[in-house]
Amino acid sequence: MTVTARRVHLAARPFGLPDDSTWAIEETELPAPSDGEVLVRVTHLSLDPAMRGWLNDVRSYVPPVAVGEVMRAFGAAVVVESRDPAFAPGDAVTGILGVTDHAVLPGDQLTAIDLDVAPATTWLGALGMPGMTAWFGLFDVARAKPGDTVLVSGAAGAVGSVVGQLAKAHGCRVIGIAGGPEKGRWLTDELGFDAVVDYREGAVHRGVRAVAPEGIDVYFDNVGGEMLDSALRVLRLGARIAICGAISTYNATEPPPGPAHYMSLLVNRASMAGFLVFDYEDRYGEAVDGIRAMLDAGTLVAREHVVAGGVDAFGDTLLMLFSGGNTGKLVLEL
Amino acid sequence: MTVTARRVHLAARPFGLPDDSTWAIEETELPAPSDGEVLVRVTHLSLDPAMRGWLNDVRSYVPPVAVGEVMRAFGAAVVVESRDPAFAPGDAVTGILGVTDHAVLPGDQLTAIDLDVAPATTWLGALGMPGMTAWFGLFDVARAKPGDTVLVSGAAGAVGSVVGQLAKAHGCRVIGIAGGPEKGRWLTDELGFDAVVDYREGAVHRGVRAVAPEGIDVYFDNVGGEMLDSALRVLRLGARIAICGAISTYNATEPPPGPAHYMSLLVNRASMAGFLVFDYEDRYGEAVDGIRAMLDAGTLVAREHVVAGGVDAFGDTLLMLFSGGNTGKLVLEL
Repeated sequence: MTVTARRVHLAARPFGLPDDSTWAIEETELPAPSDGEVLVRVTHLSLDPAMRGWLNDVRSYVPPVAVGEVMRAFGAAVVVESRDPAFAPGDAVTGILGVTDHAVLPGDQLTAIDLDVAPATTWLGALGMPGMTAWFGLFDVARAKPGDTVLVSGAAGAVGSVVGQLAKAHGCRVIGIAGGPEKGRWLTDELGFDAVVDYREGAVHRGVRAVAPEGIDVYFDNVGGEMLDSALRVLRLGARIAICGAISTYNATEPPPGPAHYMSLLVNRASMAGFLVFDYEDRYGEAVDGIRAMLDAGTLVAREHVVAGGVDAFGDTLLMLFSGGNTGKLVLEL
Repeated sequence: MTVTARRVHLAARPFGLPDDSTWAIEETELPAPSDGEVLVRVTHLSLDPAMRGWLNDVRSYVPPVAVGEVMRAFGAAVVVESRDPAFAPGDAVTGILGVTDHAVLPGDQLTAIDLDVAPATTWLGALGMPGMTAWFGLFDVARAKPGDTVLVSGAAGAVGSVVGQLAKAHGCRVIGIAGGPEKGRWLTDELGFDAVVDYREGAVHRGVRAVAPEGIDVYFDNVGGEMLDSALRVLRLGARIAICGAISTYNATEPPPGPAHYMSLLVNRASMAGFLVFDYEDRYGEAVDGIRAMLDAGTLVAREHVVAGGVDAFGDTLLMLFSGGNTGKLVLEL
């Protein structure tokens, strides 16, 4: 059995925001799976800020997507045909599938997911990379402890919304940074954040000072740029900053300025560390168990922002990440 | 017995580099020491980059020097008269004495030093705050370990020259950043640095790459600004940056830009932490013992750049720090 895959290729590296010229959609007949390989039908694609970084031709933690290649993407899928004994038709899986509606991949690059535990979208969100990122960034990198005041940017996003809820459950006071009153209400009323600072309503450091005059112990940064600089201005002694991402800078067409107030790290004997969730692969089970227990107990809200469409909708949907258009984990449902 | 002290007061906060208008020299008759107090004759004043920070009216780790106050300074002195049983006339001491030729201070603010172990100038350098700063910054904050490649800026300065020698003795490869061939030769030929990058000879990150193509594990930053940004560009996986100071920015008249390449912390799972030596006060003995053993064994060169003059020479001598005029610990000998 062979299948024609509709796939999104990188046509040209974007300068600034990706647009139509960035992508090329092509149909390709996939080879039949060889020994150890699996043919999957992709059901959901995960749209992640990191994708923007993969489009730049620079040294980073993974090689960039090459021009002409299928765009790299996490996703969820259903097994159609398997030549790996670990998988059978009908199994639900996740993995780096690419922006495509079908793929043939080595079985060892796929992970089985249990749809009785949570829908596929949640396996791309709170139980997937964003959830793992939140868990290890908060507990391992930022070493959040009960009683800490935790500030998180991109608070209504896939990672930030989990960070805040994990921190609350851990006995922290949680302040989110998000854009607009609707996100703010969701964070405080439904997720239990103690306060939200709307970055559209003035200087973030003033907003944080108004709700946490004593400053913050932890800053979990998804946004970078001015937000990181604002956070540096409100550190308490011994504060820890976890650098998870810098979505505000990913489409910059000029080198974005660095955090001018970094000497606050000295004055406050504070630290700032970058991390990548992939380094915690051996410990994902720990985070999945913890987050799953909270989901089962109803103490963690996993929200996905699901956009329906074919792979053709990938380019436009991705842009929602950069305009603040999503609340919760952004997923393209094929 | 009363004594007239000649003292340097802060006359006006400087904008940019301090100049003659910053200081006012006054003679004041000191009160006789009360119970628990000690009258000292100051023999040496320590000139430190941190002094520039104390002149700014901003929240920091210590209150700024108030306009009108005697300028804060570490120094070495000889006891003239003591009403503290811990000290007797002729004893050598160090402490925060102020920029003055005589002072009356509570005895518990003074520390006895043994001039048979090292001259007073060394007790202000390798065996004083700069040495403590080097020791705890390198071993505790940056967690340098044998085999690491250690980069240090301000390498020919009081702290940097000790950092490099401690790192070499610890089994690290050491690259210094310093200005001009004379300092470079001193660092490599006399202190045993493996390489020196002259920041006056082009982009520092290129200079470092030329001698350490694999990048650096530790960066000990005394300089800040462009040098920190350059160091961020040459980090290895898991690198640690210790922020000790930022002398290149202390006289800035506009807010200096932040380190634009900070996202290298994420790509390299690296960290950057600020520290203050005063937090290690309980453990100074550990560093003094370690550095003293190296001095005794002849494996550490303690160099002081001694300028002779009265307190009137304080203002001009201080400026040497910011022009790179000193090699080793800058001391004003009264």
